[in-house]
Amino acid sequence: MDIQTPEELNARFEQLSVLETEFEEVELEIFRKAEELQAPLYKKRADFVANIPHFWTLVFEQAPPEIDNFIQPSDAKVFAECFETFEVSRFELDDPKGSPRSFALKFGFKENEYFEDKVLEKKFWYRKSKDWAGLVSEPVKIQWKKGKDLTGGLTDAACKLSEERKKLSGSTSSSEARKKETKSKPYKELAHKIETTTDASVSFFGLFAFVSGYRWVSAEESEQVFKEEKEQLEKIKRGEKIEEDESDDEEDPIDYQEVEVFPGGDELATIIAEDMWPNAIRYYKGTFDEEEDDEELSELDVMDEDSDAENQNEDDSGREVDIRALVGKGRKSTQPPPAKKQRKA
Amino acid sequence: MDIQTPEELNARFEQLSVLETEFEEVELEIFRKAEELQAPLYKKRADFVANIPHFWTLVFEQAPPEIDNFIQPSDAKVFAECFETFEVSRFELDDPKGSPRSFALKFGFKENEYFEDKVLEKKFWYRKSKDWAGLVSEPVKIQWKKGKDLTGGLTDAACKLSEERKKLSGSTSSSEARKKETKSKPYKELAHKIETTTDASVSFFGLFAFVSGYRWVSAEESEQVFKEEKEQLEKIKRGEKIEEDESDDEEDPIDYQEVEVFPGGDELATIIAEDMWPNAIRYYKGTFDEEEDDEELSELDVMDEDSDAENQNEDDSGREVDIRALVGKGRKSTQPPPAKKQRKA
Repeated sequence: MDIQTPEELNARFEQLSVLETEFEEVELEIFRKAEELQAPLYKKRADFVANIPHFWTLVFEQAPPEIDNFIQPSDAKVFAECFETFEVSRFELDDPKGSPRSFALKFGFKENEYFEDKVLEKKFWYRKSKDWAGLVSEPVKIQWKKGKDLTGGLTDAACKLSEERKKLSGSTSSSEARKKETKSKPYKELAHKIETTTDASVSFFGLFAFVSGYRWVSAEESEQVFKEEKEQLEKIKRGEKIEEDESDDEEDPIDYQEVEVFPGGDELATIIAEDMWPNAIRYYKGTFDEEEDDEELSELDVMDEDSDAENQNEDDSGREVDIRALVGKGRKSTQPPPAKKQRKA
Repeated sequence: MDIQTPEELNARFEQLSVLETEFEEVELEIFRKAEELQAPLYKKRADFVANIPHFWTLVFEQAPPEIDNFIQPSDAKVFAECFETFEVSRFELDDPKGSPRSFALKFGFKENEYFEDKVLEKKFWYRKSKDWAGLVSEPVKIQWKKGKDLTGGLTDAACKLSEERKKLSGSTSSSEARKKETKSKPYKELAHKIETTTDASVSFFGLFAFVSGYRWVSAEESEQVFKEEKEQLEKIKRGEKIEEDESDDEEDPIDYQEVEVFPGGDELATIIAEDMWPNAIRYYKGTFDEEEDDEELSELDVMDEDSDAENQNEDDSGREVDIRALVGKGRKSTQPPPAKKQRKA
């Protein structure tokens, strides 16, 4: 019959954990293999789309609502005016201490009125703490031009806290450093700024301030956890008894989400990397679906791309605009209306 | 500047289609590679979990709401009482005319009061028509015992229509056959049965009657479409002009969803195959998360697994039950309450 002793049940769980790790290892191998096979195609695609105007702007706009909903009208205007190149890279693919799950989003812009940067790169590291695993990131400083900060100072404030965190991390134990961090001026300022931000919806550029859906986890802490897990698994495989984790790490009472500028930034970035990036051509073609329904690509498109150039010159009044209006494409037909923003009809 | 002639725009689209096909080919190769790497682990897992009571029942119950929501209380009872083995296979992996996207779900049951079958296998073929691509399936006959049909005759009626479809397909053109099909008695009977079914929620076993989210597409039709697409791509690659598709296939006016027993069956099956199947151990372990929170696995579980055996003997009254109640596990804590069914608290 089914009856088992607690010891037997625990042993079963340990064996299942070993199996799970084997699955995880194979999954990472598949990740690496996929990257290897796709790399030449991504290169080929980048070369080809470099000649297509507004390619990435249209891809982001046609992407599923999970992405599109985060692009506010004022973001759409920036994207339409100066967003040029985009790339996802798995920068820890060959790093034995890194993970194929880590990735970077690299946005390229031309000269514009909003910020000085030509490239904004946001890195996401796959890391583990004792009771969590996921993506963490460091805030990216955006060199906003005067009066043009779409995040209302949130990216700057997040960068200041990040610097404070780095200063503290050298001097003391990590839980001690975290306590000090929450008492620091940059922490209080960022928490206050987030609390009092009146805009219902944060700019897409707030993503560059994202840190974690849990809390910041350093490379050292994560490495240590990976190492301990590996040792435990080796013990299980050798049939040795596992001692319970008796460390006095009580649960962290601080809710670090009060200083998270962009909650859900890890999920958004993952959808961009795992869905939008590989399927970019399909999303781009989606822009033209409506026109194709009534007639083939025609002078209409040519005129539209023309009027787009005019729009770019004239429309700097700061009013809310739609990327598709700016680049002259029809509205998409198959997606539900985005909940978070207003658009011209 | 951005301005292009319609000819240039069309040429761009053709080139993008070629690139998309190259991405698709690489994706299929990754599929094959993944299957090859995972196959030994799936075998190992199957051997190991064969000794774990209710493993697959608990996995299905712990699976994400997209799956769990389709399991009605009466289905849960069947699952708890007699569901023993489960397997996903990519049965066209090495078939040059098939697709690595095709898969089969194979459910193994022990002797039970509901149906005669020991195995119910549901195959999903990845196929294309001129304006659609996706999974289609044939209804699977379930040998329900007298008065025990959880689908109220829907699987039987779907099988009858499927037989009619096969009879018609031999004699005439496919669009002609489809017209005849809609005028046939089995078609009208199934449509009527679906329309008048009063139950708000169809049994999970209705999945075995699923045909398509679009319409039935035969292997021959699909092969022809794949062949034509390939020829077109070869022409584009050689720089030849593509003639527009001038075939007089007007849009099919019939809505075949009126005879679809289980709308969304393709999506449900895909989540089972691509999420639940690879992550089954994690879902199984999720069952125990609550207990682990208060105390380690203990005699409580032993008792529960014991009382489960009693439940199986006593509880044949047909009242609504919860798998977790039947197998003696706590409720899950992290998921939103399922919208579609009532459960014991």
